[in-house]
Amino acid sequence: MLSYGVIGTGAIGGYYGGMLARGGKDVHFLLHHDYEYVKAHGLQIDSVNGNFHLDGINVYADSAEMPKCDVVLVCLKTVNNFRLAEMLPHLLHEHTLVILIQNGIGLEADLHETFPNLPIAAGLAFICSGKVGLGHISHQDYGKLTIAPFCAGADEVIADVIRDFTEVGVEAVTACYAESRWKKAVWNIPFNGMTVALDTTTNLLLANNDTEHLIRELMLEVIHAGNAAGVEHPIPDSFADVMIASTKVMTPYSPSMKLDYDNRRPMEIYYLYSRPILEAHKVNVDMPKVSMLENMLKFIQKEKY
Amino acid sequence: MLSYGVIGTGAIGGYYGGMLARGGKDVHFLLHHDYEYVKAHGLQIDSVNGNFHLDGINVYADSAEMPKCDVVLVCLKTVNNFRLAEMLPHLLHEHTLVILIQNGIGLEADLHETFPNLPIAAGLAFICSGKVGLGHISHQDYGKLTIAPFCAGADEVIADVIRDFTEVGVEAVTACYAESRWKKAVWNIPFNGMTVALDTTTNLLLANNDTEHLIRELMLEVIHAGNAAGVEHPIPDSFADVMIASTKVMTPYSPSMKLDYDNRRPMEIYYLYSRPILEAHKVNVDMPKVSMLENMLKFIQKEKY
Repeated sequence: MLSYGVIGTGAIGGYYGGMLARGGKDVHFLLHHDYEYVKAHGLQIDSVNGNFHLDGINVYADSAEMPKCDVVLVCLKTVNNFRLAEMLPHLLHEHTLVILIQNGIGLEADLHETFPNLPIAAGLAFICSGKVGLGHISHQDYGKLTIAPFCAGADEVIADVIRDFTEVGVEAVTACYAESRWKKAVWNIPFNGMTVALDTTTNLLLANNDTEHLIRELMLEVIHAGNAAGVEHPIPDSFADVMIASTKVMTPYSPSMKLDYDNRRPMEIYYLYSRPILEAHKVNVDMPKVSMLENMLKFIQKEKY
Repeated sequence: MLSYGVIGTGAIGGYYGGMLARGGKDVHFLLHHDYEYVKAHGLQIDSVNGNFHLDGINVYADSAEMPKCDVVLVCLKTVNNFRLAEMLPHLLHEHTLVILIQNGIGLEADLHETFPNLPIAAGLAFICSGKVGLGHISHQDYGKLTIAPFCAGADEVIADVIRDFTEVGVEAVTACYAESRWKKAVWNIPFNGMTVALDTTTNLLLANNDTEHLIRELMLEVIHAGNAAGVEHPIPDSFADVMIASTKVMTPYSPSMKLDYDNRRPMEIYYLYSRPILEAHKVNVDMPKVSMLENMLKFIQKEKY
């Protein structure tokens, strides 16, 4: 049986790790603010698929106390990824697979630079989930997890992880790495930033012709950047229409950056904006509107918080 | 002596018309909400160069009551320019010069289409002025007026108007038409929209590296569009640096669109954004960031008012 370490037990780590723990898997949770509370009262997950409570789970306040794990799910906000260099080694044995269930472009490349021999995968969570209180996660909708290998050699473990998730009731699949990351960015980049910049929600952005047009333009910049940066299969422009159509039928929803903004938490600007822009520049592609959004978000974070 | 009609007696019309009236010129003011008040109490102008009060001025509530004038100063918000077709004819004799002291691109061309034989000039006001109450104008800084002929034939009257303004203490000059309009847009387009979109002031935008960069990028889009659309003398990229440097030494200041936004008045989006974008498209120039700002402003006006 695979053992799992969960770094960051919030909306994402709490839900996916919680589902594994409920299903009887060997899961070890790293907590920060909530450690004392969860140690005493357990973890409560209100899920659209049925609420559940987890008592007596393995919780840790310090990564140095955690056991070596076969799989580490990194579910931190990416603004804290600089801490992985210190935290991760405690959990690694020779074949540990690290899955970054985070948003953005370039995350795996950066981790690979710090740990050149580490098997790494991207985790792409299509989920509406939030942390609503101490040790309390609210899972409102969706939940599919895509696990995409960043470097060769982890395929077998990934297959086992997908089997584990499937067993415990989480839809999980594998996919090509760069294509998955850029396709996710096609949604993330417009909706995260624009809901913050205009202090609004996804449905209002798409109910207005001007912002629907702008969302599509931002998506096309991401698609063209991703294709130039080298995805396994080129993303067609029509993918923007698919994303817009599928968002229109979603429940009105605040993306994670909007929740961060509403709660005055640092926004994940670097990996969601600055880094994709940088990767596009490396292949001589300009992202004028995404860059404008980046500038505005950095102003908002610095001057409006 | 030239006679003047002032259409729209607010921050701009009240100040420039008021200066002419104080100087003994023959001025006729069209008022809307303030008519009864100003008829009874006169017009109060608090100016950085000395306050003054005007009693017994010629005021009108209806353009149909106004006399024919030698010069008409149009000082309406451009969102009301559709009314000029009905209002202007009452004031026109065979040689009346109409000066549009308004912000934007394409204003004179549109008026020319409605009145093909009318001498038209652009009026470019470099001024900080606001309407602070009924019949009450506050002039905080600057005041230079540039009058640029849109069509040939008005040069002599323009020279007389400049002499009149100079006589009454308003700095006035003439300049090339397209160059003047586009140069003004270089300042107006970034600062009007960005102070609204980020709900901030010019000085804060320039105190932040990200938004200073963005302001410069927006200015460069306007410069390149203007040059492609055909200004009399190409505007160099360095003009953006000049505008930024001169704005940095200005008093923190809310541009007119920000004042409109703060007071939930319609914003002048068409002539400040949509029309320059359209003119640029006609000469195959794209303005991606200006277009993004246009989309955001239209969303704000529709959804946030």
